[in-house]
Amino acid sequence: MRLDGRQADELRPVTITLQPNKYAEGSVLIEFGDTKVLCTASIEERVPPFMKGQGKGWINAEYAMLPRATQVRNHRESAKGKLTGRTMEIQRLIGRSLRSVVDLQALGERTVTLDCDVLQADGGTRTTSITGAFVALALAVDKLNRNHAFAKYPITDFLASVSVGVIGERTLLDLNYEEDSKAKVDMNVVMTGARKFVEVQGTGEEAPFSRDELNTLLASAEEGIASLIAKQRDALGEKGSRIGTAVV
Amino acid sequence: MRLDGRQADELRPVTITLQPNKYAEGSVLIEFGDTKVLCTASIEERVPPFMKGQGKGWINAEYAMLPRATQVRNHRESAKGKLTGRTMEIQRLIGRSLRSVVDLQALGERTVTLDCDVLQADGGTRTTSITGAFVALALAVDKLNRNHAFAKYPITDFLASVSVGVIGERTLLDLNYEEDSKAKVDMNVVMTGARKFVEVQGTGEEAPFSRDELNTLLASAEEGIASLIAKQRDALGEKGSRIGTAVV
Amino acid sequence: MRLDGRQADELRPVTITLQPNKYAEGSVLIEFGDTKVLCTASIEERVPPFMKGQGKGWINAEYAMLPRATQVRNHRESAKGKLTGRTMEIQRLIGRSLRSVVDLQALGERTVTLDCDVLQADGGTRTTSITGAFVALALAVDKLNRNHAFAKYPITDFLASVSVGVIGERTLLDLNYEEDSKAKVDMNVVMTGARKFVEVQGTGEEAPFSRDELNTLLASAEEGIASLIAKQRDALGEKGSRIGTAVV
Amino acid sequence: MRLDGRQADELRPVTITLQPNKYAEGSVLIEFGDTKVLCTASIEERVPPFMKGQGKGWINAEYAMLPRATQVRNHRESAKGKLTGRTMEIQRLIGRSLRSVVDLQALGERTVTLDCDVLQADGGTRTTSITGAFVALALAVDKLNRNHAFAKYPITDFLASVSVGVIGERTLLDLNYEEDSKAKVDMNVVMTGARKFVEVQGTGEEAPFSRDELNTLLASAEEGIASLIAKQRDALGEKGSRIGTAVV
Amino acid sequence: MRLDGRQADELRPVTITLQPNKYAEGSVLIEFGDTKVLCTASIEERVPPFMKGQGKGWINAEYAMLPRATQVRNHRESAKGKLTGRTMEIQRLIGRSLRSVVDLQALGERTVTLDCDVLQADGGTRTTSITGAFVALALAVDKLNRNHAFAKYPITDFLASVSVGVIGERTLLDLNYEEDSKAKVDMNVVMTGARKFVEVQGTGEEAPFSRDELNTLLASAEEGIASLIAKQRDALGEKGSRIGTAVV
Amino acid sequence: MRLDGRQADELRPVTITLQPNKYAEGSVLIEFGDTKVLCTASIEERVPPFMKGQGKGWINAEYAMLPRATQVRNHRESAKGKLTGRTMEIQRLIGRSLRSVVDLQALGERTVTLDCDVLQADGGTRTTSITGAFVALALAVDKLNRNHAFAKYPITDFLASVSVGVIGERTLLDLNYEEDSKAKVDMNVVMTGARKFVEVQGTGEEAPFSRDELNTLLASAEEGIASLIAKQRDALGEKGSRIGTAVV
Repeated sequence: MRLDGRQADELRPVTITLQPNKYAEGSVLIEFGDTKVLCTASIEERVPPFMKGQGKGWINAEYAMLPRATQVRNHRESAKGKLTGRTMEIQRLIGRSLRSVVDLQALGERTVTLDCDVLQADGGTRTTSITGAFVALALAVDKLNRNHAFAKYPITDFLASVSVGVIGERTLLDLNYEEDSKAKVDMNVVMTGARKFVEVQGTGEEAPFSRDELNTLLASAEEGIASLIAKQRDALGEKGSRIGTAVV
Repeated sequence: MRLDGRQADELRPVTITLQPNKYAEGSVLIEFGDTKVLCTASIEERVPPFMKGQGKGWINAEYAMLPRATQVRNHRESAKGKLTGRTMEIQRLIGRSLRSVVDLQALGERTVTLDCDVLQADGGTRTTSITGAFVALALAVDKLNRNHAFAKYPITDFLASVSVGVIGERTLLDLNYEEDSKAKVDMNVVMTGARKFVEVQGTGEEAPFSRDELNTLLASAEEGIASLIAKQRDALGEKGSRIGTAVV
Repeated sequence: MRLDGRQADELRPVTITLQPNKYAEGSVLIEFGDTKVLCTASIEERVPPFMKGQGKGWINAEYAMLPRATQVRNHRESAKGKLTGRTMEIQRLIGRSLRSVVDLQALGERTVTLDCDVLQADGGTRTTSITGAFVALALAVDKLNRNHAFAKYPITDFLASVSVGVIGERTLLDLNYEEDSKAKVDMNVVMTGARKFVEVQGTGEEAPFSRDELNTLLASAEEGIASLIAKQRDALGEKGSRIGTAVV
Repeated sequence: MRLDGRQADELRPVTITLQPNKYAEGSVLIEFGDTKVLCTASIEERVPPFMKGQGKGWINAEYAMLPRATQVRNHRESAKGKLTGRTMEIQRLIGRSLRSVVDLQALGERTVTLDCDVLQADGGTRTTSITGAFVALALAVDKLNRNHAFAKYPITDFLASVSVGVIGERTLLDLNYEEDSKAKVDMNVVMTGARKFVEVQGTGEEAPFSRDELNTLLASAEEGIASLIAKQRDALGEKGSRIGTAVV
Repeated sequence: MRLDGRQADELRPVTITLQPNKYAEGSVLIEFGDTKVLCTASIEERVPPFMKGQGKGWINAEYAMLPRATQVRNHRESAKGKLTGRTMEIQRLIGRSLRSVVDLQALGERTVTLDCDVLQADGGTRTTSITGAFVALALAVDKLNRNHAFAKYPITDFLASVSVGVIGERTLLDLNYEEDSKAKVDMNVVMTGARKFVEVQGTGEEAPFSRDELNTLLASAEEGIASLIAKQRDALGEKGSRIGTAVV
Repeated sequence: MRLDGRQADELRPVTITLQPNKYAEGSVLIEFGDTKVLCTASIEERVPPFMKGQGKGWINAEYAMLPRATQVRNHRESAKGKLTGRTMEIQRLIGRSLRSVVDLQALGERTVTLDCDVLQADGGTRTTSITGAFVALALAVDKLNRNHAFAKYPITDFLASVSVGVIGERTLLDLNYEEDSKAKVDMNVVMTGARKFVEVQGTGEEAPFSRDELNTLLASAEEGIASLIAKQRDALGEKGSRIGTAVV
């Protein structure tokens, strides 16, 4: 048994609170155990310069941590005047992942920006962010659809993310901070409702891993993500019912 | 009556939630109506370079808004690479205000950093921040005191803040965003439990104001702050009982 | 008597030299004792993006100190690559104050930028800057008016600023650097020719102050500013004669 | 057959030129077809602050492109004043990969910085950089060893990297720029001489991929990397003979 | 004799390799002894904002060093976030020098950007850069001319640069790094094929110099540059044959 | 005759006002016609890190223009967040020039920083700055000497600077802004009291120049600088009497 009493293949308790923010077109407070992320989706009726005139939309993501999201206070990136490499890497990952389940043509010339702000961090902030950002995006697209129904619904499938890792000889699902800092192998997986991979990022800085170990990790992640997507469906209810109803 | 049904001298509903954050030495989620600010107090056992070797502590504050705290999404200061003048002005105000009720000698050589992160903004974010940051500071100092009782308690009085303004011919207390954008005169007041002023910042960019108008504004602010301090006392309960028990 | 021999309610010697700069539309070298500020007003026939298409003008201010304006050389903000919070706070204050006596509609779609560069600092640089910037602005508007008379004169009243403070038990007017660093309460006041307040910024970081003390401070500031405005009128002579001749 | 006449599982011509730079402790000019990267290894006899006093060394990497490494000239990051997210992501990847085959304890308190400067880019610059940086590192460590033999040789295994992707229905090895821009699935793999994975980064932004497709991609990458490591061994000759002779 | 066996008025071995880069409109790898600079010329069919609508072109230059171009690794300017004064000074010098032999009117509304990236530095990087950049520019203009012959050929003369200095009592040509660091007087000269000076920059920080010494230095530089221009002519061959055939 | 009535070899009226600043160890307001520069010399009893432990001092210079020093207002470098290449080039030139007449060993471990702030610009700001900075430096060193006489006087000679240029066929001394913008050849010369050159920077961007033209320019500059040094001697009087009394 793990330190917090979980089984190796057990997720932490997941909570999804819809619309905590009164202004955003979509917003979610998502919790994976003690990791808490506020995700908002903001719609603008224009696209970035490099997308102009293509009749397509864009999905953008930003990620940040509050200074005391962590055990020891960390410095604000705004005060330092630049983003760390870690932040840039995570926000590129979130944006790329969400775009994989959006038909940008169907979305039309508008931008949805997903802001993922970590209020409290206990490991897995990027996977929690992706999972929550998907729900915020779904709420925003549902709102657009109510005002003016899309000919083709722009979200083509569900999407969620989880971490897996190897500690000692065991493969563990959804690592918390303490487990993460002990893991020899660390992997983040993003998957769709159709159980297809969107991102597989495995790192064995401490100990390179074999193809068999990789397959064991992926199998665990696959089951974890399937559970997360079930929770997203429940949370969205009717608002998620049109997702993936059109073939892309 | 005001748009939201309040009397001219009525505060918005105030909510103070203690310790929403599991890591910070003190933390508060404070709400003035739809304005919501997460305040954390972080203790470090060292002081900034300019304070070294004086046997005294320091109180520092940082302030930020989440991108979608506002009706229209605002750009992150971390992405822009610099703080706006407005942010700097507010965080200097918060720090200065709190230092006025702290005996830095009694605190000892440590720094308390107050982070005020606006989750949702509907006017009065700086006054909400000061009022919440005081409670977070009180919790952190109480925690220090439990570990090792201070010879002299470092917090010398309660402290809260409110805005007042003139709209048309009326003096209104605790302006929300809509009222704030219509005000001819706008004033932020910070006051102690002993009803002494720490900061008085009045601006009549739209219409200069007379000494009489100033006095009316201050009288309204004074009552508003007294109510806020009563709510701080209630929220802190036993944890606030040692505040101001020593003469500075 | 004060260290420099002044009475408690006495200003330092004030000198206003018109047009020290041959290029600026308006320029003033203003001295409050040993504090010397070069103020220039520059006119551009366009407005910032956020003001476009409203048929109104804009007043903007920038403030800086030369490195050796101070007793100990301070680092250039251009070399550090960013403005300090203090600088931003002051230049926002100068701009806001001047806008309060300008009818932006009457000014038309043009920007006046006031640059306040402190050549030597001995306390009160922000109040000296506001008082001098007003005169530079008046010269620039007078020049515009000579080329093409305004239907409605854009400057609606005189404007000046002074500091007041409490040292020990005494209320002193127009603090120099040494007094300023000893003051328990420090207040900057901006007032119009009609004796209306535009800005009241009082800080009691060292010692909170009562309503009575505030009123004593304001009374002293009011008389000081009235004297400064008399000096502005003298300096401008005929060039200031149209100020405030139209009702806003 | 591919546009450049290669088989699906064929690498581009690989050239490894040792010591093109007369100052660096190790240097390599590596070419994967038209992609050319200059890799230098620089040794400093100190470690970064966060590693001090642990008796261990550190491996750091920096990555950049010359402005005309690309078909259309790209702007210098030094002129823009900040690194892009892509650059940060790549240099973090290079550093992490190389550290996986270095025994930092055995290396001792020194830092090896690997600079990977892309002289010409035709796809695969990050995999070319990792493969070349390993050789530069091996040369630098060999030089250290000649001056003063390590008790335990710090490099524990060979390491190389290659890209694989899916274009249409085909899995292709070592994509050039044109192929890369058409790929639905894009994967970068870093592997050791013992055929263990250090990094697996697969992205299906255009089209999510199944577990079977993932396995096909990994199989192709594995063979490609084995060939690259054979070329590294040849290039290093005697200088690479001590790699991996100690068990970690 | 000098440390490397040269006569006082002898250049280091010069190598000019044409078109090492497959994308740039013109590119040169130039070597003055151990100083190696990669120069690329990139053409854009537009001019910077300040040149718009004049029917003229522009020549721009950028200069940088790879981190390990030097004996001790130097920090990347991109990581520091700003260019050093030295870099700015050199790239302004390169641009100014090349513009002196280009008829911007004849060039037409396009920009040629010369990137000079120092791969290895052993003194004289700015003179090597100018000499190499001229050849890269000549290749790019020749390419433009082949596509669409210029009515008037835009390059009006050859141009090269060399350093001279005083060490002890001797005047030496083309200083390497070791000589440069010992020189009392250091001069960089840029000259045309017609033996006219474009830039003369002499510095006697260690020891001011007389007019006679200056003339001796210039005489040595003049001969050195004439030799360099002969090498440029050889390298360019037919591609340089139209240079200076039109009177400006 | 020139536009302002001067002969070709005539300086503009030169004014040197000593000690306009009450804090700086040395200060000068220098005017070359309408170009006005405030130069201050600030002494710190420490040296920059790269000079530590050598028992020698350092001379540093900074240069800036006020925004309305120019006909059209220019943007503050502090607001833009970085220095322009022109500013860096000028401040490096000022520092290097002054160091050529200072015996850093005799100065002892202290830094003198020369700030040259252009209040009004009408051409020749760098030559005016050097000429004024020398006087400010001389005042500061004289002040040091009065407190504690130097064994060897650290200033080894006088130093001044002037511009020369070619307009049409004429060589003109000390160009004003209008002349400067028409010059085909532009040269700045720095020279000592012993008529030795410290800096010769000639640029023929518009038209390369011959050795004869160069000699004519230098001859004119030499006479101009000799006149400027005579004015420096007069201004300094007794305070300049120890300059150059020791052989370096």
